[in-house]
Amino acid sequence: MRDAYHEELDALTGKLVEMTRLVRSAIARATTALLDADLQLAENVISRDEEVDRLYAEIETTIYELMARQQPVAIDLRTMITSLSMGSDLERMGDLAEHLAKVTRLRHPESAIPPQLRPTILEMGQIAERLITKAGGCIASRDAEAALELEHDDDAMDRLHRKLFRTLLAKDSGFAIEEAIDLTLIGRYYERYADHAVRVARDVVYLVTGTRPDTSP
Amino acid sequence: MRDAYHEELDALTGKLVEMTRLVRSAIARATTALLDADLQLAENVISRDEEVDRLYAEIETTIYELMARQQPVAIDLRTMITSLSMGSDLERMGDLAEHLAKVTRLRHPESAIPPQLRPTILEMGQIAERLITKAGGCIASRDAEAALELEHDDDAMDRLHRKLFRTLLAKDSGFAIEEAIDLTLIGRYYERYADHAVRVARDVVYLVTGTRPDTSP
Repeated sequence: MRDAYHEELDALTGKLVEMTRLVRSAIARATTALLDADLQLAENVISRDEEVDRLYAEIETTIYELMARQQPVAIDLRTMITSLSMGSDLERMGDLAEHLAKVTRLRHPESAIPPQLRPTILEMGQIAERLITKAGGCIASRDAEAALELEHDDDAMDRLHRKLFRTLLAKDSGFAIEEAIDLTLIGRYYERYADHAVRVARDVVYLVTGTRPDTSP
Repeated sequence: MRDAYHEELDALTGKLVEMTRLVRSAIARATTALLDADLQLAENVISRDEEVDRLYAEIETTIYELMARQQPVAIDLRTMITSLSMGSDLERMGDLAEHLAKVTRLRHPESAIPPQLRPTILEMGQIAERLITKAGGCIASRDAEAALELEHDDDAMDRLHRKLFRTLLAKDSGFAIEEAIDLTLIGRYYERYADHAVRVARDVVYLVTGTRPDTSP
Protein backbone atom coordinates (compact mmCIF):
# COMPACT_ATOMS: atom_id res chain seq x y z
CA MET A 1 0.00 0.00 0.00
CA ARG A 2 1.21 3.46 -0.87
CA ASP A 3 1.58 6.15 1.76
CA ALA A 4 -0.54 9.30 1.81
CA TYR A 5 2.23 11.34 0.20
CA HIS A 6 2.50 9.05 -2.82
CA GLU A 7 -1.25 8.83 -3.09
CA GLU A 8 -1.31 12.61 -3.38
CA LEU A 9 1.30 12.44 -6.13
CA ASP A 10 -0.77 9.83 -7.99
CA ALA A 11 -3.83 12.04 -7.62
CA LEU A 12 -1.90 14.81 -9.38
CA THR A 13 -1.48 12.61 -12.44
CA GLY A 14 -5.20 11.84 -12.34
CA LYS A 15 -5.99 15.54 -12.32
CA LEU A 16 -3.70 16.24 -15.23
CA VAL A 17 -5.38 13.48 -17.25
CA GLU A 18 -8.72 15.00 -16.32
CA MET A 19 -7.46 18.37 -17.57
CA THR A 20 -6.55 16.78 -20.91
CA ARG A 21 -10.11 15.41 -21.13
CA LEU A 22 -11.61 18.82 -20.46
CA VAL A 23 -9.44 20.68 -22.96
CA ARG A 24 -9.97 17.95 -25.57
CA SER A 25 -13.71 18.32 -25.19
CA ALA A 26 -13.32 22.13 -25.26
CA ILE A 27 -11.45 22.18 -28.58
CA ALA A 28 -13.89 19.66 -30.10
CA ARG A 29 -16.87 21.77 -29.09
CA ALA A 30 -15.13 25.01 -30.08
CA THR A 31 -14.48 23.61 -33.57
CA THR A 32 -18.07 22.45 -33.97
CA ALA A 33 -19.34 25.80 -32.71
CA LEU A 34 -17.16 27.60 -35.28
CA LEU A 35 -18.31 25.38 -38.15
CA ASP A 36 -22.00 25.48 -37.20
CA ALA A 37 -22.04 29.10 -35.95
CA ASP A 38 -23.56 27.57 -32.82
CA LEU A 39 -23.79 30.28 -30.17
CA GLN A 40 -25.06 28.03 -27.40
CA LEU A 41 -22.20 25.60 -27.83
CA ALA A 42 -19.73 28.49 -27.91
CA GLU A 43 -21.16 29.90 -24.67
CA ASN A 44 -20.83 26.45 -23.15
CA VAL A 45 -17.12 26.30 -24.03
CA ILE A 46 -16.59 29.76 -22.59
CA SER A 47 -18.37 29.11 -19.30
CA ARG A 48 -16.82 25.70 -18.77
CA ASP A 49 -13.23 26.92 -19.04
CA GLU A 50 -13.54 27.66 -15.32
CA GLU A 51 -13.36 23.93 -14.61
CA VAL A 52 -9.98 23.78 -16.30
CA ASP A 53 -8.72 26.78 -14.37
CA ARG A 54 -9.97 25.32 -11.09
CA LEU A 55 -8.25 21.98 -11.70
CA TYR A 56 -5.00 23.76 -12.46
CA ALA A 57 -5.36 25.86 -9.30
CA GLU A 58 -5.89 22.64 -7.31
CA ILE A 59 -2.80 21.09 -8.85
CA GLU A 60 -0.73 24.16 -8.03
CA THR A 61 -2.00 24.28 -4.45
CA THR A 62 -1.30 20.58 -3.89
CA ILE A 63 2.21 20.89 -5.26
CA TYR A 64 3.09 23.94 -3.21
CA GLU A 65 1.77 22.24 -0.09
CA LEU A 66 3.63 19.01 -0.83
CA MET A 67 6.81 20.95 -1.45
CA ALA A 68 6.47 22.80 1.82
CA ARG A 69 5.78 19.61 3.79
CA GLN A 70 8.06 17.12 2.07
CA GLN A 71 11.55 17.26 0.73
CA PRO A 72 10.86 15.69 -2.63
CA VAL A 73 13.79 14.17 -4.53
CA ALA A 74 14.45 12.47 -7.85
CA ILE A 75 11.30 11.14 -9.53
CA ASP A 76 8.93 12.71 -6.98
CA LEU A 77 10.45 16.13 -7.50
CA ARG A 78 10.36 15.60 -11.26
CA THR A 79 6.67 14.66 -10.98
CA MET A 80 5.95 17.94 -9.22
CA ILE A 81 7.99 20.10 -11.59
CA THR A 82 6.48 18.55 -14.70
CA SER A 83 2.97 18.61 -13.24
CA LEU A 84 3.23 22.37 -12.75
CA SER A 85 4.53 22.81 -16.26
CA MET A 86 1.99 20.47 -17.90
CA GLY A 87 -0.82 22.05 -15.90
CA SER A 88 0.23 25.47 -17.13
CA ASP A 89 0.23 24.32 -20.77
CA LEU A 90 -3.14 22.59 -20.40
CA GLU A 91 -4.64 25.65 -18.77
CA ARG A 92 -3.46 27.71 -21.74
CA MET A 93 -4.99 25.18 -24.17
CA GLY A 94 -8.31 25.71 -22.41
CA ASP A 95 -7.90 29.46 -22.93
CA LEU A 96 -7.20 28.96 -26.63
CA ALA A 97 -10.37 26.86 -27.07
CA GLU A 98 -12.22 29.63 -25.25
CA HIS A 99 -10.71 32.24 -27.62
CA LEU A 100 -12.06 30.22 -30.57
CA ALA A 101 -15.50 30.11 -28.97
CA LYS A 102 -15.39 33.88 -28.51
CA VAL A 103 -14.83 34.37 -32.24
CA THR A 104 -17.98 32.30 -32.85
CA ARG A 105 -19.87 34.45 -30.37
CA LEU A 106 -18.59 37.70 -31.85
CA ARG A 107 -19.71 36.77 -35.37
CA HIS A 108 -23.00 35.07 -34.51
CA PRO A 109 -25.41 34.67 -36.31
CA GLU A 110 -22.89 34.90 -39.15
CA SER A 111 -20.24 32.18 -39.42
CA ALA A 112 -16.57 33.15 -39.05
CA ILE A 113 -15.61 30.36 -41.43
CA PRO A 114 -16.24 30.88 -45.15
CA PRO A 115 -17.26 27.72 -47.07
CA GLN A 116 -13.94 27.16 -48.86
CA LEU A 117 -12.08 27.10 -45.53
CA ARG A 118 -14.38 24.73 -43.69
CA PRO A 119 -12.36 21.60 -44.57
CA THR A 120 -9.13 23.26 -43.37
CA ILE A 121 -10.63 24.35 -40.03
CA LEU A 122 -12.27 20.95 -39.55
CA GLU A 123 -8.92 19.26 -40.08
CA MET A 124 -7.11 21.65 -37.73
CA GLY A 125 -9.71 20.82 -35.08
CA GLN A 126 -9.26 17.10 -35.65
CA ILE A 127 -5.49 17.29 -35.40
CA ALA A 128 -5.81 19.33 -32.21
CA GLU A 129 -8.09 16.65 -30.75
CA ARG A 130 -5.70 13.89 -31.79
CA LEU A 131 -2.77 15.71 -30.20
CA ILE A 132 -4.43 16.25 -26.84
CA THR A 133 -5.85 12.72 -26.77
CA LYS A 134 -2.37 11.32 -27.34
CA ALA A 135 -0.86 13.67 -24.77
CA GLY A 136 -3.42 12.50 -22.20
CA GLY A 137 -2.56 8.88 -22.99
CA CYS A 138 1.14 9.61 -22.52
CA ILE A 139 0.58 11.24 -19.14
CA ALA A 140 -1.51 8.29 -17.95
CA SER A 141 0.86 5.59 -19.24
CA ARG A 142 4.13 7.50 -18.78
CA ASP A 143 5.03 6.42 -22.31
CA ALA A 144 8.01 8.51 -23.48
CA GLU A 145 8.19 6.87 -26.89
CA ALA A 146 4.58 7.66 -27.71
CA ALA A 147 5.19 11.20 -26.46
CA LEU A 148 7.92 11.76 -29.05
CA GLU A 149 5.46 10.89 -31.82
CA LEU A 150 3.38 13.99 -31.21
CA GLU A 151 5.84 16.05 -33.22
CA HIS A 152 4.50 14.49 -36.45
CA ASP A 153 0.95 15.58 -35.80
CA ASP A 154 2.26 19.03 -34.98
CA ASP A 155 3.98 19.15 -38.40
CA ALA A 156 0.60 18.41 -39.97
CA MET A 157 -0.88 21.33 -38.05
CA ASP A 158 1.86 23.66 -39.29
CA ARG A 159 1.17 22.60 -42.87
CA LEU A 160 -2.54 23.38 -42.48
CA HIS A 161 -1.70 26.70 -40.90
CA ARG A 162 0.40 27.66 -43.96
CA LYS A 163 -2.38 26.45 -46.25
CA LEU A 164 -4.84 28.71 -44.45
CA PHE A 165 -2.65 31.75 -45.15
CA ARG A 166 -2.20 30.73 -48.79
CA THR A 167 -5.98 30.58 -49.19
CA LEU A 168 -6.46 33.97 -47.55
CA LEU A 169 -3.83 35.51 -49.82
CA ALA A 170 -4.94 33.87 -53.05
CA LYS A 171 -5.57 36.40 -55.79
CA ASP A 172 -9.21 37.48 -55.98
CA SER A 173 -10.01 35.41 -52.88
CA GLY A 174 -12.47 38.16 -52.07
CA PHE A 175 -12.17 37.95 -48.29
CA ALA A 176 -13.20 40.95 -46.24
CA ILE A 177 -10.77 42.46 -43.72
CA GLU A 178 -12.91 41.20 -40.84
CA GLU A 179 -12.81 37.66 -42.19
CA ALA A 180 -9.06 37.85 -42.67
CA ILE A 181 -8.56 39.03 -39.06
CA ASP A 182 -10.80 36.29 -37.68
CA LEU A 183 -9.15 33.56 -39.71
CA THR A 184 -5.64 34.76 -38.88
CA LEU A 185 -6.44 34.57 -35.17
CA ILE A 186 -8.29 31.26 -35.50
CA GLY A 187 -5.32 29.72 -37.30
CA ARG A 188 -2.96 31.05 -34.68
CA TYR A 189 -5.08 29.63 -31.83
CA TYR A 190 -5.09 26.11 -33.33
CA GLU A 191 -1.38 26.27 -34.02
CA ARG A 192 -0.58 27.36 -30.47
CA TYR A 193 -2.91 24.70 -29.05
CA ALA A 194 -0.87 22.10 -30.93
CA ASP A 195 2.41 23.60 -29.72
CA HIS A 196 1.28 23.35 -26.11
CA ALA A 197 0.27 19.70 -26.61
CA VAL A 198 3.78 19.01 -27.86
CA ARG A 199 5.22 20.74 -24.80
CA VAL A 200 3.10 18.51 -22.56
CA ALA A 201 4.45 15.46 -24.37
CA ARG A 202 8.01 16.70 -23.94
CA ASP A 203 7.42 17.02 -20.22
CA VAL A 204 6.35 13.37 -20.17
CA VAL A 205 9.65 12.48 -21.84
CA TYR A 206 11.55 14.43 -19.20
CA LEU A 207 9.50 12.92 -16.38
CA VAL A 208 10.17 9.37 -17.55
CA THR A 209 13.75 9.64 -18.81
CA GLY A 210 15.15 12.51 -16.74
CA THR A 211 16.39 14.04 -20.00
CA ARG A 212 14.87 16.91 -21.96
CA PRO A 213 14.12 16.29 -25.65
CA ASP A 214 15.90 18.74 -27.98
CA THR A 215 14.04 21.79 -29.26
CA SER A 216 10.91 23.41 -27.82
CA PRO A 217 7.98 24.74 -29.89
CA MET B 1 30.40 34.05 2.90
CA ARG B 2 27.75 32.08 1.05
CA ASP B 3 28.31 28.44 0.21
CA ALA B 4 28.64 27.13 -3.35
CA TYR B 5 25.01 26.03 -3.43
CA HIS B 6 23.66 29.46 -2.58
CA GLU B 7 26.08 31.10 -4.97
CA GLU B 8 24.61 28.92 -7.69
CA LEU B 9 21.11 30.04 -6.71
CA ASP B 10 22.21 33.70 -6.82
CA ALA B 11 23.73 33.09 -10.25
CA LEU B 12 20.31 31.90 -11.44
CA THR B 13 18.80 35.26 -10.57
CA GLY B 14 21.63 36.98 -12.43
CA LYS B 15 20.91 34.89 -15.51
CA LEU B 16 17.20 35.69 -15.37
CA VAL B 17 17.98 39.41 -15.18
CA GLU B 18 20.32 38.97 -18.14
CA MET B 19 17.46 37.25 -20.03
CA THR B 20 15.22 40.26 -19.36
CA ARG B 21 17.95 42.53 -20.80
CA LEU B 22 18.21 40.43 -23.93
CA VAL B 23 14.47 40.23 -24.56
CA ARG B 24 14.08 43.95 -23.82
CA SER B 25 16.72 44.73 -26.41
CA ALA B 26 15.08 42.25 -28.81
CA ILE B 27 11.64 43.88 -28.62
CA ALA B 28 13.16 47.36 -28.94
CA ARG B 29 15.09 46.37 -32.05
CA ALA B 30 12.15 44.40 -33.46
CA THR B 31 9.91 47.48 -33.12
CA THR B 32 12.47 49.75 -34.79
CA ALA B 33 12.99 47.19 -37.56
CA LEU B 34 9.22 47.08 -38.16
CA LEU B 35 8.87 50.86 -38.25
CA ASP B 36 11.96 51.42 -40.43
CA ALA B 37 11.54 48.28 -42.57
CA ASP B 38 15.15 47.61 -41.58
CA LEU B 39 16.11 44.14 -42.82
CA GLN B 40 19.54 44.09 -41.22
CA LEU B 41 18.18 44.92 -37.81
CA ALA B 42 15.46 42.29 -38.20
CA GLU B 43 18.05 39.65 -39.13
CA ASN B 44 20.02 40.67 -36.08
CA VAL B 45 17.00 40.09 -33.81
CA ILE B 46 16.39 36.71 -35.42
CA SER B 47 19.96 35.46 -35.15
CA ARG B 48 20.44 36.70 -31.60
CA ASP B 49 17.43 34.87 -30.18
CA GLU B 50 19.82 31.93 -29.77
CA GLU B 51 21.45 33.74 -26.85
CA VAL B 52 18.12 33.84 -25.04
CA ASP B 53 17.51 30.16 -25.71
CA ARG B 54 21.01 29.27 -24.53
CA LEU B 55 20.60 31.18 -21.27
CA TYR B 56 17.30 29.44 -20.59
CA ALA B 57 18.87 26.06 -21.32
CA GLU B 58 21.66 26.91 -18.84
CA ILE B 59 19.11 27.87 -16.20
CA GLU B 60 17.19 24.63 -16.74
CA THR B 61 20.34 22.52 -16.55
CA THR B 62 21.52 24.23 -13.37
CA ILE B 63 18.16 23.75 -11.69
CA TYR B 64 17.84 20.10 -12.61
CA GLU B 65 21.38 19.49 -11.34
CA LEU B 66 20.74 21.38 -8.11
CA MET B 67 17.51 19.49 -7.56
CA ALA B 68 19.26 16.16 -8.07
CA ARG B 69 22.13 17.06 -5.73
CA GLN B 70 20.33 19.02 -3.03
CA GLN B 71 17.04 18.68 -1.26
CA PRO B 72 15.85 22.25 -1.63
CA VAL B 73 13.18 23.49 0.75
CA ALA B 74 11.15 26.65 1.33
CA ILE B 75 12.61 29.74 -0.31
CA ASP B 76 15.35 27.80 -2.16
CA LEU B 77 12.81 25.47 -3.68
CA ARG B 78 10.58 28.42 -4.56
CA THR B 79 13.56 30.12 -6.20
CA MET B 80 14.07 27.07 -8.41
CA ILE B 81 10.40 26.64 -9.30
CA THR B 82 9.90 30.29 -10.17
CA SER B 83 13.21 30.47 -12.05
CA LEU B 84 12.05 27.66 -14.33
CA SER B 85 8.73 29.36 -14.88
CA MET B 86 10.17 32.86 -15.42
CA GLY B 87 12.83 31.46 -17.72
CA SER B 88 10.13 29.78 -19.79
CA ASP B 89 8.16 33.03 -20.10
CA LEU B 90 11.26 35.05 -20.99
CA GLU B 91 12.28 32.50 -23.60
CA ARG B 92 8.83 32.84 -25.15
CA MET B 93 9.14 36.64 -25.14
CA GLY B 94 12.35 36.26 -27.15
CA ASP B 95 10.43 34.10 -29.64
CA LEU B 96 7.72 36.74 -29.96
CA ALA B 97 10.28 39.48 -30.71
CA GLU B 98 11.75 37.11 -33.28
CA HIS B 99 8.29 36.59 -34.84
CA LEU B 100 7.96 40.37 -35.20
CA ALA B 101 11.36 40.53 -36.89
CA LYS B 102 10.28 37.79 -39.29
CA VAL B 103 7.30 39.87 -40.41
CA THR B 104 9.73 42.71 -41.21
CA ARG B 105 11.91 40.28 -43.19
CA LEU B 106 8.94 38.81 -45.05
CA ARG B 107 7.70 42.23 -46.22
CA HIS B 108 11.07 43.86 -46.94
CA PRO B 109 11.65 46.19 -48.80
CA GLU B 110 8.01 47.13 -48.13
CA SER B 111 6.99 48.10 -44.61
CA ALA B 112 4.43 45.94 -42.77
CA ILE B 113 3.20 49.05 -40.94
CA PRO B 114 0.99 51.51 -42.84
CA PRO B 115 1.53 55.19 -41.90
CA GLN B 116 -1.68 55.61 -39.88
CA LEU B 117 -0.73 52.70 -37.61
CA ARG B 118 2.86 53.73 -36.91
CA PRO B 119 1.99 55.61 -33.69
CA THR B 120 0.04 52.59 -32.36
CA ILE B 121 2.84 50.14 -33.08
CA LEU B 122 5.45 52.51 -31.67
CA GLU B 123 3.44 52.78 -28.47
CA MET B 124 2.92 49.02 -28.22
CA GLY B 125 6.68 48.61 -28.54
CA GLN B 126 7.30 51.21 -25.85
CA ILE B 127 4.86 49.59 -23.43
CA ALA B 128 6.45 46.20 -24.08
CA GLU B 129 9.87 47.68 -23.28
CA ARG B 130 8.56 49.31 -20.13
CA LEU B 131 6.97 46.05 -18.96
CA ILE B 132 10.11 43.97 -19.41
CA THR B 133 12.32 46.64 -17.88
CA LYS B 134 10.10 46.70 -14.79
CA ALA B 135 9.94 42.90 -14.67
CA GLY B 136 13.74 42.75 -14.74
CA GLY B 137 13.90 45.29 -11.91
CA CYS B 138 11.47 43.22 -9.85
CA ILE B 139 13.50 40.05 -10.33
CA ALA B 140 16.69 41.82 -9.28
CA SER B 141 15.20 43.58 -6.27
CA ARG B 142 12.63 40.92 -5.30
CA ASP B 143 10.09 43.72 -5.05
CA ALA B 144 6.61 42.17 -4.87
CA GLU B 145 4.82 45.50 -4.67
CA ALA B 146 6.44 46.85 -7.82
CA ALA B 147 5.63 43.52 -9.48
CA LEU B 148 1.92 44.01 -8.90
CA GLU B 149 2.05 47.35 -10.74
CA LEU B 150 2.79 45.69 -14.06
CA GLU B 151 -0.90 44.93 -14.50
CA HIS B 152 -1.57 48.61 -15.28
CA ASP B 153 0.88 48.71 -18.15
CA ASP B 154 -0.67 45.51 -19.42
CA ASP B 155 -4.10 47.18 -19.44
CA ALA B 156 -2.61 49.94 -21.60
CA MET B 157 -1.36 47.28 -24.02
CA ASP B 158 -4.80 45.70 -24.22
CA ARG B 159 -6.33 49.09 -25.03
CA LEU B 160 -3.85 49.64 -27.86
CA HIS B 161 -4.55 46.14 -29.13
CA ARG B 162 -8.26 46.91 -29.38
CA LYS B 163 -7.48 50.24 -31.04
CA LEU B 164 -5.44 48.41 -33.67
CA PHE B 165 -8.43 46.22 -34.55
CA ARG B 166 -10.75 49.22 -34.67
CA THR B 167 -8.41 50.93 -37.15
CA LEU B 168 -8.21 47.81 -39.30
CA LEU B 169 -11.99 47.48 -39.35
CA ALA B 170 -12.79 51.15 -39.92
CA LYS B 171 -15.05 51.65 -42.90
CA ASP B 172 -13.08 52.37 -46.10
CA SER B 173 -9.83 51.82 -44.25
CA GLY B 174 -8.59 50.38 -47.53
CA PHE B 175 -6.23 47.80 -46.04
CA ALA B 176 -5.24 44.84 -48.17
CA ILE B 177 -5.74 41.29 -46.85
CA GLU B 178 -2.00 40.82 -46.50
CA GLU B 179 -1.71 43.98 -44.40
CA ALA B 180 -4.61 42.88 -42.21
CA ILE B 181 -3.01 39.47 -41.61
CA ASP B 182 0.36 41.02 -40.76
CA LEU B 183 -1.13 43.58 -38.41
CA THR B 184 -3.36 41.02 -36.69
CA LEU B 185 -0.34 38.85 -35.96
CA ILE B 186 1.85 41.81 -34.97
CA GLY B 187 -0.80 43.00 -32.51
CA ARG B 188 -1.12 39.51 -31.09
CA TYR B 189 2.66 39.19 -30.61
CA TYR B 190 2.90 42.45 -28.65
CA GLU B 191 -0.09 41.53 -26.53
CA ARG B 192 1.31 38.10 -25.70
CA TYR B 193 4.72 39.63 -24.95
CA ALA B 194 3.02 41.86 -22.37
CA ASP B 195 1.08 38.91 -20.90
CA HIS B 196 4.30 36.97 -20.38
CA ALA B 197 5.90 39.98 -18.66
CA VAL B 198 2.96 40.06 -16.25
CA ARG B 199 3.40 36.34 -15.60
CA VAL B 200 7.04 36.94 -14.75
CA ALA B 201 6.02 39.66 -12.30
CA ARG B 202 3.48 37.33 -10.69
CA ASP B 203 6.20 34.75 -10.19
CA VAL B 204 8.21 37.40 -8.35
CA VAL B 205 5.21 37.95 -6.08
CA TYR B 206 4.99 34.23 -5.39
CA LEU B 207 8.72 33.96 -4.82
CA VAL B 208 8.72 36.78 -2.28
CA THR B 209 5.40 36.20 -0.51
CA GLY B 210 4.83 32.47 -0.97
CA THR B 211 1.34 33.31 -2.22
CA ARG B 212 0.08 33.38 -5.79
CA PRO B 213 -1.60 36.58 -6.99
CA ASP B 214 -5.15 36.00 -8.25
CA THR B 215 -5.77 35.63 -11.97
CA SER B 216 -3.31 34.72 -14.68
CA PRO B 217 -3.16 36.30 -18.14
